[in-house]
Amino acid sequence: MAFYFKKITVIGVGLIGGSLSIILKRKGLAGSITGVGRGLANLEAAKRLGVVDSFTRDVGEGVKDADFVLIATPVLKIGETVRKAAPFLKKGAIVTDVGSVKKAVIDECEPLIPPGVHFVPGHPIAGTEHSGVEAAFPDLFKGRRCILTPTDKTDDNALSTVKGVWEAAGSEVVVMDPSRHDAILAAVSHLPHMIAYSLVNTVGDIEKSGVDALSYSAGGFRDFTRIASSSPEMWADICAMNSDAILKTISDFEKRLANLKTLIDANDVEGLKQDFARAKSIRDSLVNKAGKLAEDK
Amino acid sequence: MAFYFKKITVIGVGLIGGSLSIILKRKGLAGSITGVGRGLANLEAAKRLGVVDSFTRDVGEGVKDADFVLIATPVLKIGETVRKAAPFLKKGAIVTDVGSVKKAVIDECEPLIPPGVHFVPGHPIAGTEHSGVEAAFPDLFKGRRCILTPTDKTDDNALSTVKGVWEAAGSEVVVMDPSRHDAILAAVSHLPHMIAYSLVNTVGDIEKSGVDALSYSAGGFRDFTRIASSSPEMWADICAMNSDAILKTISDFEKRLANLKTLIDANDVEGLKQDFARAKSIRDSLVNKAGKLAEDK
Repeated sequence: MAFYFKKITVIGVGLIGGSLSIILKRKGLAGSITGVGRGLANLEAAKRLGVVDSFTRDVGEGVKDADFVLIATPVLKIGETVRKAAPFLKKGAIVTDVGSVKKAVIDECEPLIPPGVHFVPGHPIAGTEHSGVEAAFPDLFKGRRCILTPTDKTDDNALSTVKGVWEAAGSEVVVMDPSRHDAILAAVSHLPHMIAYSLVNTVGDIEKSGVDALSYSAGGFRDFTRIASSSPEMWADICAMNSDAILKTISDFEKRLANLKTLIDANDVEGLKQDFARAKSIRDSLVNKAGKLAEDK
Repeated sequence: MAFYFKKITVIGVGLIGGSLSIILKRKGLAGSITGVGRGLANLEAAKRLGVVDSFTRDVGEGVKDADFVLIATPVLKIGETVRKAAPFLKKGAIVTDVGSVKKAVIDECEPLIPPGVHFVPGHPIAGTEHSGVEAAFPDLFKGRRCILTPTDKTDDNALSTVKGVWEAAGSEVVVMDPSRHDAILAAVSHLPHMIAYSLVNTVGDIEKSGVDALSYSAGGFRDFTRIASSSPEMWADICAMNSDAILKTISDFEKRLANLKTLIDANDVEGLKQDFARAKSIRDSLVNKAGKLAEDK
């Protein structure tokens, strides 16, 4: 490893922040790790579990003297966090985030970063259904992608260092334009969540009319709607921060669905078969790729 | 058990037909079971595995002298199968099916059933991703629902007997109107498939424009789109046979999605939270119910 941080500060010691803390400690890449958060119980658990060496609820105090600051708060809080941290950041410090929307975060944060401090926007594509430091584990990022979205202002050395951090965590790092990131995530992550929420609400409407439809759903429906159990707060924030890309991808999806309606209405069984077969071949290739990826690791 | 069949005929010895054969044999409820199908290899496997005692590829020959006939062919083939079987069905025989659409099947089959033969339309809500007799297993229906949809013409004794068969398989039998069945299944099963196919095709369209979006999808996307790997032929048939209910449920879903777009466009974070929270609470209650159901068994 070409890097070592005397002091690391992790703001938001949950699943993501906690897991990266564990990794950096185990690999001996951190002198000490300070956790910053709002919930005392979670911070105390982080200390007890050895995920952080110390903690504070004050962002300014937490980031003082830090060489590397990881912002792992909910995505809507990243800007506010940077605003609080900015006056206390030391020259040469690297600040990176894990927000699942990039353009809005950059627009908000980049102007707040003091001269001599390096901001590297990032997004590790990893997670589980669980949250909080007790859910953290060192293999969370292994074999996953991490997207970094530098801008014209991003320092090359800082970018290399952050790349090294995520590679140390076992991730494959991909560098891309923030808007491209937001468009891709809108399609493969944000759109499925919008669909899952809408589907469950549709079936909920039927329930309200007195038909106990849900009780006839099988395992397929439960699997399919699992992501509708995700945090409403987090997803409302993501919608607000990536609205343009999400609206576009919903419209694309609506066109596909309208096309299906036309085929059904016309009783075009051949057309339906072709439409479904195309989807099946794409989905099957995804599983094969994933299988291959798993084997490669 | 209040029933015993000297001869059972299973037409379509796949996952569903094969599994029920195994159950009826093990429970000593069948004198002999004859399998009928089109694929010789599958029928030979069924014989070799002891799922059936004999087999034929001729429907008429197969149903001769049978007391109980299970039609477990693809849903679009049920009518044709009944047409072939009709002249050879013995007086007093019970014929039942497992089609996942009920009204269209009834409209087609009921007029073909000879006097003195009893037709009981049914739909066991069970299945796996696998098909063919080699995927059959005796616990497939355990703890699952089976819906029977009798009409004015259905014989009460025959209905009781078919109910007993599915209860012997471990299912909870629910009797309801065919149209109600079709509306419920459209919402909790057919609609999710339409959505999954459309979602995968939407992401496929983005891929075509040169953005390798799929490679950034995580496990969530793979789980969510699993049902898009279902048989295109089967789902095209289901669309053709349940078109009205499916079109209605797609329209309901479209309204929900349009409402979401309005909220996103208006940056109504509170409204989005409420919408998502409603879906989450419905989805969470489903999991709790399922957990409870599993405990009860």
